[in-house]
Amino acid sequence: MEFTDSIIARRMKDINGSAIREIFHLLAKPGMISFAGGNPADTALETDVAARLAVKALEKYGTSLIQYGATEGFAPLKESAAQYFRDTAGVPATPDTLLPVQGSSQAFDLILKALIDPGDVVLVESPTFLGALQAIRTYGARIESIPTDEGGVIVDALEEQIKRYHPKMIYVIPTFQNPTGVTLAADRRRPLAQLAAKYGVLLCEDDPYRDLRYEGEPLPSIASYDAEGWVAYMGSFSKIIAPGLRVGAVIANKTLMRKLVIGKQSADVHSPMLNQAIVDGYIREDILMPHIRRILDDYRRQMNAMLDGFKYFPEGTVHTLPQGGLFVWAKLPRGMDALELFPAAVEKNVAYVPGTHFYPDLGHTDTLRLNFSKSTVEEIGRGMKILGEVLGGNGR
Amino acid sequence: MEFTDSIIARRMKDINGSAIREIFHLLAKPGMISFAGGNPADTALETDVAARLAVKALEKYGTSLIQYGATEGFAPLKESAAQYFRDTAGVPATPDTLLPVQGSSQAFDLILKALIDPGDVVLVESPTFLGALQAIRTYGARIESIPTDEGGVIVDALEEQIKRYHPKMIYVIPTFQNPTGVTLAADRRRPLAQLAAKYGVLLCEDDPYRDLRYEGEPLPSIASYDAEGWVAYMGSFSKIIAPGLRVGAVIANKTLMRKLVIGKQSADVHSPMLNQAIVDGYIREDILMPHIRRILDDYRRQMNAMLDGFKYFPEGTVHTLPQGGLFVWAKLPRGMDALELFPAAVEKNVAYVPGTHFYPDLGHTDTLRLNFSKSTVEEIGRGMKILGEVLGGNGR
Repeated sequence: MEFTDSIIARRMKDINGSAIREIFHLLAKPGMISFAGGNPADTALETDVAARLAVKALEKYGTSLIQYGATEGFAPLKESAAQYFRDTAGVPATPDTLLPVQGSSQAFDLILKALIDPGDVVLVESPTFLGALQAIRTYGARIESIPTDEGGVIVDALEEQIKRYHPKMIYVIPTFQNPTGVTLAADRRRPLAQLAAKYGVLLCEDDPYRDLRYEGEPLPSIASYDAEGWVAYMGSFSKIIAPGLRVGAVIANKTLMRKLVIGKQSADVHSPMLNQAIVDGYIREDILMPHIRRILDDYRRQMNAMLDGFKYFPEGTVHTLPQGGLFVWAKLPRGMDALELFPAAVEKNVAYVPGTHFYPDLGHTDTLRLNFSKSTVEEIGRGMKILGEVLGGNGR
Repeated sequence: MEFTDSIIARRMKDINGSAIREIFHLLAKPGMISFAGGNPADTALETDVAARLAVKALEKYGTSLIQYGATEGFAPLKESAAQYFRDTAGVPATPDTLLPVQGSSQAFDLILKALIDPGDVVLVESPTFLGALQAIRTYGARIESIPTDEGGVIVDALEEQIKRYHPKMIYVIPTFQNPTGVTLAADRRRPLAQLAAKYGVLLCEDDPYRDLRYEGEPLPSIASYDAEGWVAYMGSFSKIIAPGLRVGAVIANKTLMRKLVIGKQSADVHSPMLNQAIVDGYIREDILMPHIRRILDDYRRQMNAMLDGFKYFPEGTVHTLPQGGLFVWAKLPRGMDALELFPAAVEKNVAYVPGTHFYPDLGHTDTLRLNFSKSTVEEIGRGMKILGEVLGGNGR
């Protein structure tokens, strides 16, 4: 018989792939100004440093670097990364509680694999990272929303949702959230850790943007307030070194860690040591912090250019004012539809992501996500002006 | 409350990790002769070539090599690997039907993710690769065995099992099987592809050892006989270039491929391009085939030394006579127990894997798997002699 998709798993039948990654296929058009991605600037990626660190590591560690390695990760990186997340985020990480993974996407996939039985509930901010929504769905979990405001997750509302849905997990991006750019208020961080412990729910703190702060003071991670192991911290080097290396880390209590390691054994045996060694080199040679400082200056200018560009948008447009990260979020005036206007924008060579894709229940077609890291200040100005025209703004 | 494993998913509760990877922790003991792993020889791993190809690729492709990349894989490798598997295995691969993955372990994990609803049946050879057994269990599938003989899977018996269990998948390692070293007979290959199509079952052909042939002529892959998309072919560069790079590939029909790509989007977004580019360099510079020829000469000597070493084993021991791969499989005389004797062997500084771990239902404690690729000819002779003594052989 011909191959038929009737053998596809029920939970996978209706999952048709990331809308963003589909939009990427449109961006090959020459001259396109893309506010659609979440990529670091190419100028923030140092191929010369990567090459030097790769050669140095292969010389230093020899064949062990390309032989089978431990599922638990490359020992030097486990140590340096644990130190890094202790220093920058206050996460109580040790080499034993830190697992290097293929970006924080794999961290989340392994946590879902460890915890989710079909039908379990996962609470998420709404809107949230659409890759996380897709991952949750591939495990057959139910998704319910957490009410948020300009300070991120609303603590009392979260408690109500926990009581109502008895979730197994809470997924939160507390710092410069994707897609909104909003940061969870300082005084809500300890209460979130406490709620997770009180109700026995695992809180997944996805924190890949933490180090991209252009204004204000860093806040402690939610995990820094976790005394009983109910917060799993997902860190990433994608946004501060290079996404293509695929190196992130998950920090979790030892009971959960054991199941994450077992899940990783069958997912991919281990992460490539060469890539882990390059990231370890960045940390140990003390070149990571100066590198971050340099890219912050560029990204700050780009973000400010984007915020300035809203002057071209129609009156009544509302947008976030992030202190860092890669994204600004906008809500168009009543009656306007960012999903409907998307083809017209692409036609004029400017792309964004319609906000509807980030909502568990879709809708909210008046919203859009704009990324500033992949465009120059000049492109941002030009692109925002074009978008303003497409949206019928008056260029006030 | 304290963190409790009561929130772990039901299907993960009883999975406690790969027995082999636990055995690995014992092998750090100095002077240990390990027949336990499945690692290539360190002398087969070329760190200088890896370093040169990494530098060359970073120069050639620039920041695109460490920026976010396509889930579908690094385009040059999709092309070169498709050509490679067409040439070496007769698999009808094209860049569109080939997905680079983190070793064939990830290929299998993504196929399981795409197909398995809890309770679905997967048929496997018994014994089989224990990583596959663990992966199947993490998806909550039921495992049933396929009868085999010295020619691998018995075709009629497989058809009986298909009729009885209505499986969704069949998992087979047809060439130099792990753990037995047995190769599926030439005249059984087309019938297996036909059975998969007749009953609408996906046959996963895991073929990482194909190129490690020390005797006899290569056989066509099962996938080469697949006309309707019911065979998914899993290839790997782990055994012929370097496992630590974590580069393999899965070749599947386009309907299934779409779901594998979606699964990979949420599993790890994409595989690192640097690693894919190193493997692509090996293929395109025509250094892979000469490299394989060189390692074959070494491995052939090592295998023969191991086969010779069975003279130290007790009378009545039966073992396979592989034509390639990394493993020899042995069955001890009646009443002997390879699981029970394992601590005594480790005490004498020789390790193997008790065969019981490779059986879906355990048992078969009279069997063991011996790997020869990671030890020198001298170590193999010495190790087999020690093992013979531990087993009470008479050194005939």
